[in-house]
Amino acid sequence: MADQSSGNSLKAKIILQQCLSGRLQVKPADDETPAEFVEVNRGIIVYVCFMKGASQDIVEKMVKAVLNVKLSQSDNGKTVSVLDLPGDVLIVPQATLGGKLKGKVMQYHSNIGKDEGLKLYSSFVQKTQIEVENNAKSIESKCQVKWGTYGNRQVLSIVTNGPYTHTLDF
Amino acid sequence: MADQSSGNSLKAKIILQQCLSGRLQVKPADDETPAEFVEVNRGIIVYVCFMKGASQDIVEKMVKAVLNVKLSQSDNGKTVSVLDLPGDVLIVPQATLGGKLKGKVMQYHSNIGKDEGLKLYSSFVQKTQIEVENNAKSIESKCQVKWGTYGNRQVLSIVTNGPYTHTLDF
Repeated sequence: MADQSSGNSLKAKIILQQCLSGRLQVKPADDETPAEFVEVNRGIIVYVCFMKGASQDIVEKMVKAVLNVKLSQSDNGKTVSVLDLPGDVLIVPQATLGGKLKGKVMQYHSNIGKDEGLKLYSSFVQKTQIEVENNAKSIESKCQVKWGTYGNRQVLSIVTNGPYTHTLDF
Repeated sequence: MADQSSGNSLKAKIILQQCLSGRLQVKPADDETPAEFVEVNRGIIVYVCFMKGASQDIVEKMVKAVLNVKLSQSDNGKTVSVLDLPGDVLIVPQATLGGKLKGKVMQYHSNIGKDEGLKLYSSFVQKTQIEVENNAKSIESKCQVKWGTYGNRQVLSIVTNGPYTHTLDF
């Protein structure tokens, strides 16, 4: 766990929620086309935010933590990882997680720049995909990794049997 | 903001999400009666967790922060507080927020005891209700405060136009 007191050493924040289903907009509607969405079934929602100083070397650690932490309830009542459930993964870029309360407003001075953030986010998505696509149980159950479009508004709906919300700091 | 490095001085954690609607189970089904739910319309979802050492004196501060921080998007595109929106408030007790990753499992050693936690949670709910019930705009728009049952599984569904997720540490 990172020391958050200085605000400098925290490199990334994740929030994990368990879901029965989730639906996320990946392209807003425009004059000619309706909005586009991705959907997942039972699994996890992963909200991701990178802070200043984050680099590729923590991405792998983040992906490992998210996919292996035992927080998902299996049908026989055991608490297992999303890889062992096995379940879907919906990744939501959520730069707002970098906010710090200052009076009545949130400030985002510790957030990483947009270009760097997009690179790390894309890497996080890709590494998650690779892990899930190489996991025998996930393949057998046709589990999917879906993700939101970096920089877009994340229009999201979720249905849970208990979100069982956790935060992970890196 | 609390120093989170020691794990001792962090007294409470909140996650805020904006919602268009939310639905939370407050009583599970049993042999004789179906499950009971509460519902909110546009407003905020407030996930609350108290840690060891939390006491009544931070509850008021938490309520003020949650109700006054400007994170809600009004119809004319301004970013305002939930009191100024005005919007509903759905409070979700979420002890899992106190978890810290240790290997592949989460540990909850810093969480407050159940009895104390219930007292603080009840106080948080009550103070939030009082603030909303005394806010002219909230009264006029018939805004509501709803909350989950402490200690229950929080069966939750939300619809958002962007959850715009924020964490607040106390």
